[in-house]
Amino acid sequence: MSSSTEPSTRFASEWSRRHLLGLEYLEAREINLILDQADELHELTNGGRTKLSWLQGTVVANLFFEPSTRTRTSFSLAAKRLSADTVDFTSSGSSLSKGETFVDTARNIEALGVDQVVVRHRSPGAPGLLAKALKTTVLNAGDGTHEHPTQALLDISTIRRHRGTLEGQTVVLVGDIRHSRVARSNIWGLKKLGARVIVCGPATLIPPRIQDLGVEVSYSLDEVIGEADCINLLRIQFERQRGAFFPSIAEYAHLFGMNGQRIRKAKENTLILAPGPINRGVELTPDVADGKHSVILDQVRNGLLVRMACLYLLLKGGQS
Amino acid sequence: MSSSTEPSTRFASEWSRRHLLGLEYLEAREINLILDQADELHELTNGGRTKLSWLQGTVVANLFFEPSTRTRTSFSLAAKRLSADTVDFTSSGSSLSKGETFVDTARNIEALGVDQVVVRHRSPGAPGLLAKALKTTVLNAGDGTHEHPTQALLDISTIRRHRGTLEGQTVVLVGDIRHSRVARSNIWGLKKLGARVIVCGPATLIPPRIQDLGVEVSYSLDEVIGEADCINLLRIQFERQRGAFFPSIAEYAHLFGMNGQRIRKAKENTLILAPGPINRGVELTPDVADGKHSVILDQVRNGLLVRMACLYLLLKGGQS
Amino acid sequence: MSSSTEPSTRFASEWSRRHLLGLEYLEAREINLILDQADELHELTNGGRTKLSWLQGTVVANLFFEPSTRTRTSFSLAAKRLSADTVDFTSSGSSLSKGETFVDTARNIEALGVDQVVVRHRSPGAPGLLAKALKTTVLNAGDGTHEHPTQALLDISTIRRHRGTLEGQTVVLVGDIRHSRVARSNIWGLKKLGARVIVCGPATLIPPRIQDLGVEVSYSLDEVIGEADCINLLRIQFERQRGAFFPSIAEYAHLFGMNGQRIRKAKENTLILAPGPINRGVELTPDVADGKHSVILDQVRNGLLVRMACLYLLLKGGQS
Repeated sequence: MSSSTEPSTRFASEWSRRHLLGLEYLEAREINLILDQADELHELTNGGRTKLSWLQGTVVANLFFEPSTRTRTSFSLAAKRLSADTVDFTSSGSSLSKGETFVDTARNIEALGVDQVVVRHRSPGAPGLLAKALKTTVLNAGDGTHEHPTQALLDISTIRRHRGTLEGQTVVLVGDIRHSRVARSNIWGLKKLGARVIVCGPATLIPPRIQDLGVEVSYSLDEVIGEADCINLLRIQFERQRGAFFPSIAEYAHLFGMNGQRIRKAKENTLILAPGPINRGVELTPDVADGKHSVILDQVRNGLLVRMACLYLLLKGGQS
Repeated sequence: MSSSTEPSTRFASEWSRRHLLGLEYLEAREINLILDQADELHELTNGGRTKLSWLQGTVVANLFFEPSTRTRTSFSLAAKRLSADTVDFTSSGSSLSKGETFVDTARNIEALGVDQVVVRHRSPGAPGLLAKALKTTVLNAGDGTHEHPTQALLDISTIRRHRGTLEGQTVVLVGDIRHSRVARSNIWGLKKLGARVIVCGPATLIPPRIQDLGVEVSYSLDEVIGEADCINLLRIQFERQRGAFFPSIAEYAHLFGMNGQRIRKAKENTLILAPGPINRGVELTPDVADGKHSVILDQVRNGLLVRMACLYLLLKGGQS
Repeated sequence: MSSSTEPSTRFASEWSRRHLLGLEYLEAREINLILDQADELHELTNGGRTKLSWLQGTVVANLFFEPSTRTRTSFSLAAKRLSADTVDFTSSGSSLSKGETFVDTARNIEALGVDQVVVRHRSPGAPGLLAKALKTTVLNAGDGTHEHPTQALLDISTIRRHRGTLEGQTVVLVGDIRHSRVARSNIWGLKKLGARVIVCGPATLIPPRIQDLGVEVSYSLDEVIGEADCINLLRIQFERQRGAFFPSIAEYAHLFGMNGQRIRKAKENTLILAPGPINRGVELTPDVADGKHSVILDQVRNGLLVRMACLYLLLKGGQS
């Protein structure tokens, strides 16, 4: 019981950063520190169900300039699970979307005694801008098509918890690679931890020169499904697409959707991941979503733990 | 002081259910357990004003797919008064109203470590669906025209606190019986506890065969007002009515509204109840709402206590 | 450490009011008590960063009938910093804007066990109405064009922290004096504490007979800037103006906006205040907002402390 209330410094003492802006900027060692801290929290909190006092007296501000229910709630509960107070700022954008006002808003929030700022913004780089302007820690909860590091960390944590390591795992990322900050963060994190990454989707949704990031490209899911240890079915983000990148939803589901028939071509123990909210019948069918390969709800559980780990390490790290 | 911080097991030990879906499904004994627990909480907390630690470390999620301020706030404060953390999910419906996605949403919330889900949904049976899908406890905060059990419990608790018993009380429910989940829950609860129930309203707002539930029917408030020990003036729910069920608001108020003149026909000690928010001048006039018969604010106070009792019993009941 | 957890009664014992409706109704002695309490809180909490338990077990309701992010968040964090629970009611108005229903809503909230009500409403006098109807304490967070006392208190606190006293300070309030509750509250507070107040703006935005409040009037900022110890650049509240009170924004900025050129005419140590959110380029230019005269972020910081002081004094004052 004492172990659950006394903050652990095992990983915090090795951590030095104040901000989590993207997995591109972390070393493999640092990514593993976060995953290790999340694993320790998993044990100490019975999978996130017990409250710790590690961030008692601190304040976490959720600054969401794009709508979000899941990520915002996950961060909010992660903060509460560590006994931090939380304060929410949501905005559909308009008056708060100008760069200058955005920083003004954040500076005001900082002046209210906030210790950590979790920010989602449609502009790539907005969290980095805040990190320069504020004395608080800054956590990127998704910035345009740039990065969504905690989503990738929870994906990777889920794989590591099932497989023990990322080393040598073949991970296929399926769908809209072009517009997906989740894909981008996954690629950075997976490659750094030694996984083989294949991106797979319609040619219109694969950005040119993506191979430069060290990934392989496939335009046919059926072609690569047999090699996959893990398949991450990205969400079709209708709201983020400006043009028509594929003929129809039915066509997409036919070629790139996961269903009971297609999954039979996969390895016996393939893991199916999907960042929510899933469009059932598009990226995957209900039998797969609820089937034996699916670790979708594990991802949600690990998301809480990974965010607890990040909040803790950023604020308390490097002090011992 | 120790009694107020140590959870009471007096009633919890006799409680076994994990869900509160409707009063139809409870035995009289169980309804009384909730009322007894609420009464005990009333004493321990000075009428709900002192904070207890009975649910410390647990998380209550408010899942409101229909707008609500009062019920949501009452549940939220009930949770906080027991030291639970709370998290709110509100939605005007659209994307979250499909059955499948609705359960997906709830499963995600459960995966975030939530212990109890309070749900309001326009579809009758939606909370029951969640109760089957989740491992959390589920509390129905209103499902379509089906039930709104905590509203009926607070109505009944208010009567019991004034009268000592429901046995032999004549309760008249006035208004839109057809569309009212409050009426339905009240009928189940009141009958089980031995009250005589008269439903009263325009013929168009009394559903056929309502007598099968053991109630009497009247189409004239003036005819039955003299027999009433308690009169519950249901809210005209304009938003829940699809057609025109009565000629005009003025006509309704004239025939079924309670006013200073009509109340003189009632017993000296008749109780006037009304689930908020009241439409002053429609269901009742201000002189009655604020007059000596009115127990409307007692209902609000008891609502907090009844919800504290339900949250506590569902999560901690049956464990000793 | 004990001093920070044990409530201080030094100022509370001299405080007797239950409501903060406006600075018009306070004596100089009382305004200074709030400022002194805020200063003590500043020391005890390391500028608002440490949590105290002074209001543990109490509930603060934020009742905002007009949109607000900053004031609401500041009050909310102030309550949390003192360990009170908070509950938010926001409404764009319509159904809740009728006087009677407004009081009904508040009475319902009171019945839920709320101890303090923070209220913003477009109707002048609405908080006073609540103060009469409720047993809770009531804090005015802005009522129409009447008063916004905590904003003025934080402005005055900021000046006092920089200057030690208000006595003899020349404070120029610039802008829309006619529609500004911030101006009105500032005038009351500043005059009571012995400051000299000059209001300055377009003639259309200076109400007739404003001199009766003991202030001087100027229609030219350039004329009075040299005398100012403090310049408070009020926000142009486009939403509160019914007509066209000045030709154009550019014209306003030219004549009454603060910029790098105009500020050179001011005293070396003039303080620039501005209640947020500032319209950069209108009331002041970025170089001034972020320049050496600006105490804008100090205002935000002091706002938290002043609101903590008010919440504490109103609820716990006069009891020893």
